Amino acid sequence: MNFANLSFKQPLLAEDLLTISQDKRPLVTFQFEEYLVMKGKQVNNSLDEAVHLQHPIKIHEAMRYSLLAGGKRVRPILCIASCELVGGDESLAMPMACALEMIHTASLIHDDLPCMDNHDLRRGKPTNHKVFSEETAVLAGDALLSLAFEHIASNTRNISPDRVVRAIAELSTTIGSQGLVAEASLVCGAIVGGGNTADIERVRKYARCIGLLFQVVDDILDVTKSSEELGKTAGKDLVSNKATYPKQMGIDKAKKFASELMIQAVGELAYFDAARGAPLYHLANYIANREN
Amino acid sequence: MNFANLSFKQPLLAEDLLTISQDKRPLVTFQFEEYLVMKGKQVNNSLDEAVHLQHPIKIHEAMRYSLLAGGKRVRPILCIASCELVGGDESLAMPMACALEMIHTASLIHDDLPCMDNHDLRRGKPTNHKVFSEETAVLAGDALLSLAFEHIASNTRNISPDRVVRAIAELSTTIGSQGLVAEASLVCGAIVGGGNTADIERVRKYARCIGLLFQVVDDILDVTKSSEELGKTAGKDLVSNKATYPKQMGIDKAKKFASELMIQAVGELAYFDAARGAPLYHLANYIANREN
Repeated sequence: MNFANLSFKQPLLAEDLLTISQDKRPLVTFQFEEYLVMKGKQVNNSLDEAVHLQHPIKIHEAMRYSLLAGGKRVRPILCIASCELVGGDESLAMPMACALEMIHTASLIHDDLPCMDNHDLRRGKPTNHKVFSEETAVLAGDALLSLAFEHIASNTRNISPDRVVRAIAELSTTIGSQGLVAEASLVCGAIVGGGNTADIERVRKYARCIGLLFQVVDDILDVTKSSEELGKTAGKDLVSNKATYPKQMGIDKAKKFASELMIQAVGELAYFDAARGAPLYHLANYIANREN
Repeated sequence: MNFANLSFKQPLLAEDLLTISQDKRPLVTFQFEEYLVMKGKQVNNSLDEAVHLQHPIKIHEAMRYSLLAGGKRVRPILCIASCELVGGDESLAMPMACALEMIHTASLIHDDLPCMDNHDLRRGKPTNHKVFSEETAVLAGDALLSLAFEHIASNTRNISPDRVVRAIAELSTTIGSQGLVAEASLVCGAIVGGGNTADIERVRKYARCIGLLFQVVDDILDVTKSSEELGKTAGKDLVSNKATYPKQMGIDKAKKFASELMIQAVGELAYFDAARGAPLYHLANYIANREN
């Protein structure tokens, strides 16, 4: 995707953020790619440990197949970055981060079913029901959804139980809506990271912008990219009855809307320490500019 | 089902319980039918309030259709009775009780799908996907599963958050297994009801027996009852590859096994106040003798 004509190119936004930030250290020195790779690996390791090949084997195989099929781990990284933003350590957020990916994967498995969106490919690989069966795909999705809550409740450490309950309430209300789960990723990260009420509400505002941004960009990618580039079937939204931003407002206005959301989101980060805010600044930029 | 040839007829067990109980008040005066009707109504009212007809309407309609389609509310009543057994008030257990029914309904909706057990009838009514669509049935099941956790986390009152987290961990590990969800109903009731460790472990032992008893009786009913009597398609287990107790051990041994489980379960109740134990004594008897 060519975002060159949009106003949220990285250098401009880096300046914006520096202008509104109290801390004048240059954010552009932050090694974002390294951060993503490092956090992604830690999330993958934790996910690998979270789902063992146990009875019933076929369902756990199916769970692992989709859960460990790659993917950017955007939601877990959002959660960890938000936890770190408010001053928490990564370990506080990891069970919640893994749960977010489990819930996301569950919804993808079910969404791909023949009676739903009927996708044959996901992340460049055959979808779950294509490899296993529809029956197994339904059960694997359900099991991942349950496991997500079990994982949070059983494995979260060094956080007061009232924050755990609050995070579960926050998370569970958003399931079924892609955009809202992205929002919950961040808000839950701020809750388990020990953020105060004002912190959490600022993160919530940032999250709303990012959640919407993610969806708008997703819609744009569906009409501008090939299946090969996306690693999943492209153009599906166009032929279906699904309401998308490009369909509703045209591709140019959709891109402009994405730009505005990006600017609003970054504005909320100005209230936090700039170094701690760097990952979320770059994440917003990354989501806006992702190509698949 | 004629249980007249089994050793757990009500008068015998009432005597057994009185013998091992510290409290000599006659349990047979307990109005079990009234208790079931009263608790069932309260659960139904709470479930009705828990799921409103909101956006997206069709999915919430489908959720309400299956959730409010009747049913004995065995799991919620087990949960409430267990809460009361350890000295807790019904209100402490109600959000958990509703969540149990939501999870149970979600699994029924998914189990009935064409790619799963392919049932046309459930509780004497057309199954969810027959009334709505397969797509809606998948989503309604997922939404009920999520709502269950949201409901516990958001609506549980007057219980320490560590007990709420513990109950969520307990519950979420058992989803996907009918027998284990019955077990979790009771254990979670004891947790939210304020039971100590010994209380909770006694309830767990009772729960294991009852969970297994429920399944054994279910299997027996499938081969001895008609679709009309059951309110769902009978004989399905027989023609499918599903392993059932009557298939594995024969119908007579399956009935004897049910009897033994009943006796073990009731034995655990002897450690509690007999009046508080009465509903669970009668519930065990009811599950053993249910006819659909």
